[in-house]
Amino acid sequence: MTRIDEALETKMANAIRALAMDAVEAAKSGHPGAPMGMADVATVLFHRFMRVDPGNHRWPDRDRFVLSAGHGSMLVYAIHHLLGYDDMGMDQIRAFRQMGSRTAGHPEYGHAQGIEMTTGPLGQGIATAVGMALAERMTHARWPDLTDHWTYVIAGDGCLMEGISHEAIDLAGHLRLGRLIVLWDDNGITIDGGTDLSASTDQGARFAAAGWHVQAVNGHDREAVAAAIGAARGDGRPSMIACRTVIGFGAPNKQGGHDVHGAPLGAEEIAAARKALDWPHDPFALPEDVAAAWAAIATRGAQARASWAARLDASPDRAAFLAAQDAPDARALRKAIAGHCQRLAQDRPKVATRKASEMALEVINATLPLTVGGSADLTGSNLTRSKGMATIRPGDYGGRYVHYGIREHAMAAVMNGIALHGGFVPYGGTFLAFADYSRPAIRLGALMGVPVVHVMTHDSIGLGEDGPTHQPVEHLASLRAIPNLQVFRPADAVETAEAWEIALTSPGPSVLALSRQNLPAVRVEDEDANRSRRGAYVLRATPLPRDVTLIATGSEVEIALAAADLLRADRINAAVVSAPCFELFARQDRAYRQGVLCDAPRIGVEAAIRQGWDLFLRPDDGFVGMTGFGASAPAPALYRHFGITPEAVAALARNLVKGEDPWR
Amino acid sequence: MTRIDEALETKMANAIRALAMDAVEAAKSGHPGAPMGMADVATVLFHRFMRVDPGNHRWPDRDRFVLSAGHGSMLVYAIHHLLGYDDMGMDQIRAFRQMGSRTAGHPEYGHAQGIEMTTGPLGQGIATAVGMALAERMTHARWPDLTDHWTYVIAGDGCLMEGISHEAIDLAGHLRLGRLIVLWDDNGITIDGGTDLSASTDQGARFAAAGWHVQAVNGHDREAVAAAIGAARGDGRPSMIACRTVIGFGAPNKQGGHDVHGAPLGAEEIAAARKALDWPHDPFALPEDVAAAWAAIATRGAQARASWAARLDASPDRAAFLAAQDAPDARALRKAIAGHCQRLAQDRPKVATRKASEMALEVINATLPLTVGGSADLTGSNLTRSKGMATIRPGDYGGRYVHYGIREHAMAAVMNGIALHGGFVPYGGTFLAFADYSRPAIRLGALMGVPVVHVMTHDSIGLGEDGPTHQPVEHLASLRAIPNLQVFRPADAVETAEAWEIALTSPGPSVLALSRQNLPAVRVEDEDANRSRRGAYVLRATPLPRDVTLIATGSEVEIALAAADLLRADRINAAVVSAPCFELFARQDRAYRQGVLCDAPRIGVEAAIRQGWDLFLRPDDGFVGMTGFGASAPAPALYRHFGITPEAVAALARNLVKGEDPWR
Repeated sequence: MTRIDEALETKMANAIRALAMDAVEAAKSGHPGAPMGMADVATVLFHRFMRVDPGNHRWPDRDRFVLSAGHGSMLVYAIHHLLGYDDMGMDQIRAFRQMGSRTAGHPEYGHAQGIEMTTGPLGQGIATAVGMALAERMTHARWPDLTDHWTYVIAGDGCLMEGISHEAIDLAGHLRLGRLIVLWDDNGITIDGGTDLSASTDQGARFAAAGWHVQAVNGHDREAVAAAIGAARGDGRPSMIACRTVIGFGAPNKQGGHDVHGAPLGAEEIAAARKALDWPHDPFALPEDVAAAWAAIATRGAQARASWAARLDASPDRAAFLAAQDAPDARALRKAIAGHCQRLAQDRPKVATRKASEMALEVINATLPLTVGGSADLTGSNLTRSKGMATIRPGDYGGRYVHYGIREHAMAAVMNGIALHGGFVPYGGTFLAFADYSRPAIRLGALMGVPVVHVMTHDSIGLGEDGPTHQPVEHLASLRAIPNLQVFRPADAVETAEAWEIALTSPGPSVLALSRQNLPAVRVEDEDANRSRRGAYVLRATPLPRDVTLIATGSEVEIALAAADLLRADRINAAVVSAPCFELFARQDRAYRQGVLCDAPRIGVEAAIRQGWDLFLRPDDGFVGMTGFGASAPAPALYRHFGITPEAVAALARNLVKGEDPWR
Repeated sequence: MTRIDEALETKMANAIRALAMDAVEAAKSGHPGAPMGMADVATVLFHRFMRVDPGNHRWPDRDRFVLSAGHGSMLVYAIHHLLGYDDMGMDQIRAFRQMGSRTAGHPEYGHAQGIEMTTGPLGQGIATAVGMALAERMTHARWPDLTDHWTYVIAGDGCLMEGISHEAIDLAGHLRLGRLIVLWDDNGITIDGGTDLSASTDQGARFAAAGWHVQAVNGHDREAVAAAIGAARGDGRPSMIACRTVIGFGAPNKQGGHDVHGAPLGAEEIAAARKALDWPHDPFALPEDVAAAWAAIATRGAQARASWAARLDASPDRAAFLAAQDAPDARALRKAIAGHCQRLAQDRPKVATRKASEMALEVINATLPLTVGGSADLTGSNLTRSKGMATIRPGDYGGRYVHYGIREHAMAAVMNGIALHGGFVPYGGTFLAFADYSRPAIRLGALMGVPVVHVMTHDSIGLGEDGPTHQPVEHLASLRAIPNLQVFRPADAVETAEAWEIALTSPGPSVLALSRQNLPAVRVEDEDANRSRRGAYVLRATPLPRDVTLIATGSEVEIALAAADLLRADRINAAVVSAPCFELFARQDRAYRQGVLCDAPRIGVEAAIRQGWDLFLRPDDGFVGMTGFGASAPAPALYRHFGITPEAVAALARNLVKGEDPWR
């Protein structure tokens, strides 16, 4: 650290304030309060600590910065403009919140360089950052000479009120993620008014209870902020620094009130702020000395990256390190899965698909060294841990398995963070019904397009006695509704392995819905092709003419096959289609889809609600499934009670076929 | 409190243990660990403190008991059997987890008397109990002479790890809900193993940071437990008592380990436990002295209820108190809403439906004295506060408005708790996109069938610049997927008022999806009937023959009407159907549905994904809506960008009509 020019640093901070208020004013929409309030803290962080290289924005050993309070997006855009990211010219700042600009209302991952994740839904940033900080330690455990970076978060009151923050803070404290530093924008204001309207918690004591290092500073005293960040870096625990700030600092008549949170200041107040801040420059204009000071930060980052690159080039681990930054080795995976499926076609194991998933993971985890498993305290139920996976423990990050605790939401967010950090391929398990707990993070992962696999077992009433709280009925539909998310519901061990292969070679997130109960092998031919890739396919063909098509997923494929057997006795030709992934089937061309489905009457069979099945079914087609919540009883009794049986499917088929051809 | 017969109380606790292990064994499934571990604590609680009357299980001033760790359901069933609830005979205990029994895997509200709520999804119990404890204080503020009860919770490690616990604990601490006492089953065990696998938080310090009174005791030292509960009752803050217990206490070879958590003990271990506990009785057999001691608790409760009833009868507030226990006055509400709608039909206000909701609430809150509003820190956006609603504050519970803070999940659970407690009709607001945060509690409310109204504004890309994190696209579908939940998306101020009327007179929960942007009045005739009751109806008829039916909801009804105008120029007769509630339409008979939809080609218009629209649309029908995430830009630009415009609807209609009749 060199000597700081205090006056210049003040101007550096005011540059953020000016850009934020001018951009929000131009957009007639946005949040000036947080960027202006946190400008000093952010300036200290970037000026004195952050190591990023705008010329190489994906540099693996860069520091990560997450604006968990995503509504303050102009803070990020202003800083990135000042640092000289070449896709963040002043044209972008001027186009804040306009169609097609990179400067969206909230920071969007992939829209512009250097945005480490999409934020906006409160609490997601801090939880995802825990994943980044964990991935840093895991990378460090493997390549200590090539890994030395920090994860910084700016969080608001909302982030700390959201439940996910509890799960994230607990886990970070437990795992002693000392490279994580949270700067809390402690401005005492929420949208409804003062925080005292709804909050009384002593946040410092709360973080301390979770094993964090805690400090509190005046967020406009830059020396104090710098000292606190320095002390935080010197402590082995994750750190929270409460930065007491004035929201909208610099807007003399509005600062400190909740009106400055989420609305433009107005021309008059902006003029007053220019005066108060001694910032005589035109809107969107920056004085040269300020621009140069910010540019120097980028230069420092570029130098750091260059010296890191030299170390990498000299390292014996170079190839392995670089390979870990890439997507998993698809060719090796495909080969391993193909071999596994050949064995399955011979062995024909009758196993639950959760067990089939465990069998697939034995192969996958032996093939891909950088998968990282875990479960939200259901390891023995989700079967997510393959042999020899060591546990990741506080201070010991060389393992490959995370005990996330009973924290489904944080698990999903932390997995997003691990994937965003790079170097690892995360998957984690819970019950499908509890997808609801992690839904906001699953959605955010889909929006960002991060490769994460959500292993969700106990996927229907087939889980039995635990009853309706634990039995998903609408969860398949509600997950299929999320754009960019692949939902797999495999029917046997082969389809489960295929689903894993597709999930691990897809750019976005996937859900694997897996049964608790045993299922017979239905894919018993030795095939090379991954048939699940098409989303749905004819599992059992029928001699022409096809009278009816039974379409099923997961545990109900067995039922459809048995129904087809019953129908054969009536000389009704029933084809059976297995449909492990609706999203993939929807992407097939019309000819393929028509070839699978044909014109004959169709019946969908899934122990869940019908919503979403219009991909397959026409109004006169049939559906055998659920129409409401489940119940507590042994699984076979439930299937009978809810009428999801081969007999029910066959009876419906007979009716439909009769309607089609009364002379039959 | 009378002198305690220690030896007898030991047997009372062992009766719970015996019933739990025997019932789980008979079911071959279930969780003996928690009931056996917490038997001492629960016995002290019921024996020395709880005031319930099994003969009048809905008595309003009863103490509430919530088993947040719902997997320990046999604890509740055993206690209710011992207390003599007449629907909890030994036949039910023997039928634990079997089809049709009241003794479901997890306690199910409505299945048996005295079960205050459904639990199982962890953390829901503690958060819902906050709502019960708040409702107690609100009732007390109105009728202090008739209100004097406590809310007790048994929570496990999982409940305290879940994020929702943070939101709930913070809010309870802030509101100083001194009548809430949480007994934490601190057994150091989770499913994956010791809690130290995933947790290091000092729970006592954590609760203290949130403003709670905290104690720790040996959970098998009944005198210490009693003293702690007594001290908790003496403190003005909510209380947490950490009860250190041995999971599965009494099973000599398995207790204290995670194997005892969720599986039957087995015959051998049960025999050993009988010996260890000195419980020589047959399975499901209870000695007389133990039965009598438990029965005495019920007698004490009945006496307490009788003396309360005498106070009620003598009270000048009798009528008002009893009225508050009933459902809202539907006749008064209907009359008020009808008058409001008449005025709207004259005024034809062009307002956002969130504003229309505020207008309706002015009428509703003036008519129904016991509605309780609130928002998760978006009061000015959700417009959930009508004039003169006082804020509920720490120590001052006479108000009608709750600032829930940025805690969507707890808000939904607390509202469930308020409704379950009775006496109030809760509603609360957030953005529709954040329904994902509260989804587990919304689902649980639907499963229980509690009347709660979720006000969810900013219901589409129409919110504009905040971008895809805040723009719901799949949320309507995913909420419509939840059984027993009514989702309304009204098109104007009249439909908004109608939705409120239906929601407030329905037995279960409802979601109101409301626009941020202004919408023209589309219901401009002075009608008596609530047309939304049918779920969908012909808003604009057309001269015969009808060429096409445009079906739309909410903000897109305006677009469908404009498209119909465009089509009229082409001499295409387009009827417009408004569909504010899919669930209600699905319940109409076939004739009504067919009369609304007719045979002509149909086009659905909704700024959301198509999933769920198969209620209206056939495969060859059209849909104008979203296929993926939204974007950040002003709303009009987004509607153009995503092609949700009258022109697009009209163009699609022309194509469909042409396909129907090429000579046209």
